[in-house]
Amino acid sequence: MTTTMSHNGVDITALFATIDAVRDDPDLAKFQFRATNQWLKGTHNQSTIHGFYGAKQEMTHQAAWTYDADHPAVLVGQDNGPTPVEYVLHALAACLASGLANIAAARDVNLTEVTATVEGDIDLLGILGLSDEVRNGYRQIRVRMQVDGDASPEELAALVQRSRARSAVYDVLANGTDVQIEVAAGRGAGR
Amino acid sequence: MTTTMSHNGVDITALFATIDAVRDDPDLAKFQFRATNQWLKGTHNQSTIHGFYGAKQEMTHQAAWTYDADHPAVLVGQDNGPTPVEYVLHALAACLASGLANIAAARDVNLTEVTATVEGDIDLLGILGLSDEVRNGYRQIRVRMQVDGDASPEELAALVQRSRARSAVYDVLANGTDVQIEVAAGRGAGR
Repeated sequence: MTTTMSHNGVDITALFATIDAVRDDPDLAKFQFRATNQWLKGTHNQSTIHGFYGAKQEMTHQAAWTYDADHPAVLVGQDNGPTPVEYVLHALAACLASGLANIAAARDVNLTEVTATVEGDIDLLGILGLSDEVRNGYRQIRVRMQVDGDASPEELAALVQRSRARSAVYDVLANGTDVQIEVAAGRGAGR
Repeated sequence: MTTTMSHNGVDITALFATIDAVRDDPDLAKFQFRATNQWLKGTHNQSTIHGFYGAKQEMTHQAAWTYDADHPAVLVGQDNGPTPVEYVLHALAACLASGLANIAAARDVNLTEVTATVEGDIDLLGILGLSDEVRNGYRQIRVRMQVDGDASPEELAALVQRSRARSAVYDVLANGTDVQIEVAAGRGAGR
């Protein structure tokens, strides 16, 4: 890997250099991502994503992005943004697509198309407090990916499987993780 | 519940009417949420959220919202949007906030402040293929909520716990779910 090559818009030289650097100093791989959320009214709230920690330093994205979440009218909201659970589907599709582009590039495969549709089935009897047997979250999430590029259908499908096998969002959704919630309540809490 | 009352911007009459309607006809609670994702270049891709199924019918949000995801430069991306894993943190905070507003309203508690910061620790040795022992996803996610309103700190904290206990995103992240991935690969796949 002596010259800069780009497949799929991925800077392969930088990708391999990053992997080499992390192999030499694994602490570079310790990241912390963050979001802050501000409740506005009803089910409407807004998150901001800006700073994170990684490669042994505090960093920021190029902008502080904000995202609205709400419930649609049928769920007694004002539809100022997607529901929280829809953002989860976006996160999963995005993680698989990003990983696939990197993995294909590292294997000299040019991709010409990657699209995905994600569906999540959820029975709101749980959330609405009408059943203790129905879970609150998605019962199942299904991803259908369409992939094309300079490789056989079998090779392309294998790249998707490798992307799944190294996807952070897939891992958390499929296997769960430790979630801790701490509350500071009352006047002036946390200030 | 004979008059429309609003706490926290929540239409409580509509909320209780919805719960009553679903109690009478549980099929109303079966929802399917969706996202479509289009890979653009490198780790940059974009999801659209618009249609969903619920209350026995196909529905759409008031707009087709699009969201960019990418990796920052330190992770060999172009920083056109948050990483997929950051959207997961937003989804969790948003779900807890929405649920809290509803739950407080249903108990006649006016909220004056709900903010949250969410942090997720992730070791990228997994994703980078440098360790088979380090998981790909978040090792831990921590939420710190600050809540104020017309109730005692203990009551407010209890409302947050109820929100956690009925949160769809918390459930999926803490407990995992079934995720199925299907691939259509090769020229003209899926068309």
